[in-house]
Amino acid sequence: MRGRIGARLDALVRRSAATPGLIPLGGGLPSDEQFPRAALGAAFVRVLSQRGAPALQYGWPEGMESLRARICRRLRSRRMVGLEPRDIIVTNGAQQAIALVADLLARPDDAIAVDAQSYPSALELFRSRRLKLVSPTAAERATAVYAMPVVSNPTGKTLLARERAKLLGLGRPIVEDEAYADLAFDGPPPPPIGASARDQVFLVGTFSKILCPGLRVGWLVVPARWRARLLRLKEAADLQSNGLAQAVVDDYLAHNDLEQRLAGLRKFYRQRAARLATAVRRHLPSWAFQFPTGGFSLWIDTDARVDELKLVEAAIGEGVGLDPGMTFLARHDEDRPTSLRLCFSLARPSDFEEGARRLARAWRRLGPQRRGGLPLGGASSRGRAGSAGRGAWDAAQ
Amino acid sequence: MRGRIGARLDALVRRSAATPGLIPLGGGLPSDEQFPRAALGAAFVRVLSQRGAPALQYGWPEGMESLRARICRRLRSRRMVGLEPRDIIVTNGAQQAIALVADLLARPDDAIAVDAQSYPSALELFRSRRLKLVSPTAAERATAVYAMPVVSNPTGKTLLARERAKLLGLGRPIVEDEAYADLAFDGPPPPPIGASARDQVFLVGTFSKILCPGLRVGWLVVPARWRARLLRLKEAADLQSNGLAQAVVDDYLAHNDLEQRLAGLRKFYRQRAARLATAVRRHLPSWAFQFPTGGFSLWIDTDARVDELKLVEAAIGEGVGLDPGMTFLARHDEDRPTSLRLCFSLARPSDFEEGARRLARAWRRLGPQRRGGLPLGGASSRGRAGSAGRGAWDAAQ
Repeated sequence: MRGRIGARLDALVRRSAATPGLIPLGGGLPSDEQFPRAALGAAFVRVLSQRGAPALQYGWPEGMESLRARICRRLRSRRMVGLEPRDIIVTNGAQQAIALVADLLARPDDAIAVDAQSYPSALELFRSRRLKLVSPTAAERATAVYAMPVVSNPTGKTLLARERAKLLGLGRPIVEDEAYADLAFDGPPPPPIGASARDQVFLVGTFSKILCPGLRVGWLVVPARWRARLLRLKEAADLQSNGLAQAVVDDYLAHNDLEQRLAGLRKFYRQRAARLATAVRRHLPSWAFQFPTGGFSLWIDTDARVDELKLVEAAIGEGVGLDPGMTFLARHDEDRPTSLRLCFSLARPSDFEEGARRLARAWRRLGPQRRGGLPLGGASSRGRAGSAGRGAWDAAQ
Repeated sequence: MRGRIGARLDALVRRSAATPGLIPLGGGLPSDEQFPRAALGAAFVRVLSQRGAPALQYGWPEGMESLRARICRRLRSRRMVGLEPRDIIVTNGAQQAIALVADLLARPDDAIAVDAQSYPSALELFRSRRLKLVSPTAAERATAVYAMPVVSNPTGKTLLARERAKLLGLGRPIVEDEAYADLAFDGPPPPPIGASARDQVFLVGTFSKILCPGLRVGWLVVPARWRARLLRLKEAADLQSNGLAQAVVDDYLAHNDLEQRLAGLRKFYRQRAARLATAVRRHLPSWAFQFPTGGFSLWIDTDARVDELKLVEAAIGEGVGLDPGMTFLARHDEDRPTSLRLCFSLARPSDFEEGARRLARAWRRLGPQRRGGLPLGGASSRGRAGSAGRGAWDAAQ
């Protein structure tokens, strides 16, 4: 993804962000109207009024004790029996948690098993460490497995019980990324895979999607035998996570009902998902998707092949943003049909209809060629399994 | 430093922090009475009241544009001619800036040139990356040089013009750490070494010492040819630095006179330095030090050899904290006389006299053996050059 194409895509993303009137169906950003600004402001005032304002001073590399205790209590309620605050390290968002585990476990040329479609910044992280990306079916030669069992980004899938068991059965260390787990539409998520295999699983979570990303407060549950080494890597990376943001989150959690907020967010995003799905079905009936189990986006499989960067350009030209599928692919396959991610999280729902109309114009403008092996007729978006259901991919890069 | 000794020291540091009534002459923390709490609170309120609260949303990996422009203007006034905001990346404190450069330039078994006494978290970072620490005299085989030319931590030294020239003359990439440069007692620092060798120097700075550490806002000036790769590493590490903290700092700088604040801080810390120096000279006349050129601490060379961990334990027993010299040493030499760092930044100046008295009791309790090669009589703290003046050390680890 880097090099010429990466640079072109990066330029497009920035152009898209700077385009006035653009309907942002790309980007994966949470809804800013859901940021609890007043409550965070009140928390900040209380934090700053503490004697000596410890939140402004240096803290410990593992993070603020009281915040780790709160995260611990939430996880214990999800069958993480016996979990202690010392098992948890506060990180600079979920991304840093994944990066620290990668640096802990993997050396250049090691293999990491990932889904065929996965979280782009994790893929880029692994590539920046010169790790090989392989399919979970090739996990026996992988140093670790990276997975999002509940509400995967980008596919919106949640693993079934047998798929979860299979993941554990691979016998490799697992990085279990729960970034969207609290936003599963059906309610509180199941226990983490890590609950039944604490020695095998690094559990990653974050407040970015459920409070706001700008705080950069995430966490990592570390198996005991790796704790000291992980902590050393955290300290080497940046001494400690932002003390002010940690204290604000901690105080927010002390004074607000997070579970109630989550119930509201689930409803909020589920309604948006339904509305965008309706608009896409109406204006782009040939685009196939499975309704997501949660999160911020629809993962679309088209029945044709176009240059995805040209599609992004055309869409910006029509006044709508999207995320090209290539960003999410562990392996780049020139011959695959075009895929893309559409986000319902940030744009106004009243713009969804117009957004889909603009997408359809951009799509027609490129005159997509239907791919030989695919059915010609408008595949039903309900009847056809998205590529997310196609199972694992096989080749290493 | 890691392993058994590191764990013991870590336990001592934590014990010391938890000991009530302890006079904290260790730790290197800035004075919390100098945190601009009211001004930061006002900044926070303004930041949160912005439409859409962009500080709470995701931002760009290089950091907030307006903040980078402010940092750029300050550096331009120090002869960084032609510097542009795009040359600057906002990091999670100075530590992350150093870590990113280490990951950019060095591979395991590469050598990094450092001073004989240096910043512990940089040394630990390099060790965690399995880099070899070598003396600047062996820099020709080093991948890079790490240096603090203005107000070194821990020695409090500032390089002379010919020493600066020599550093550049090594011809290696330099990580120029300016964490304490704005707190040089004599006033604004000279232009960075990087000003005359922009392609060779990665310049590191931070708001941790001059505003407060809990915000974790630092910066890195990257030579143009490395910018894209560095940015990729930053994004892989944690996507972006804390948006809220960046916005608060940016707004603070827009509404407050930083240079006036710095003038006040220089005076504040210089007075404290003088007061601690007086107390140490009175109660521990055999301890030698050079009055620092700035920063938070005195670097002490004793004329005897004791187990430094026992010294820390004894000092905690007497109710005073200190930083053992071993923490700062690039190479551990069992045969060297004991050294230590005493901080005047955090403790109350009215406690300095009592702190020195407690240190003297701890020191006597250990019955230090004067080292053969060192003069027996109480070396004058003014007349004798500290080890900081002894020049480079020679051996690689």
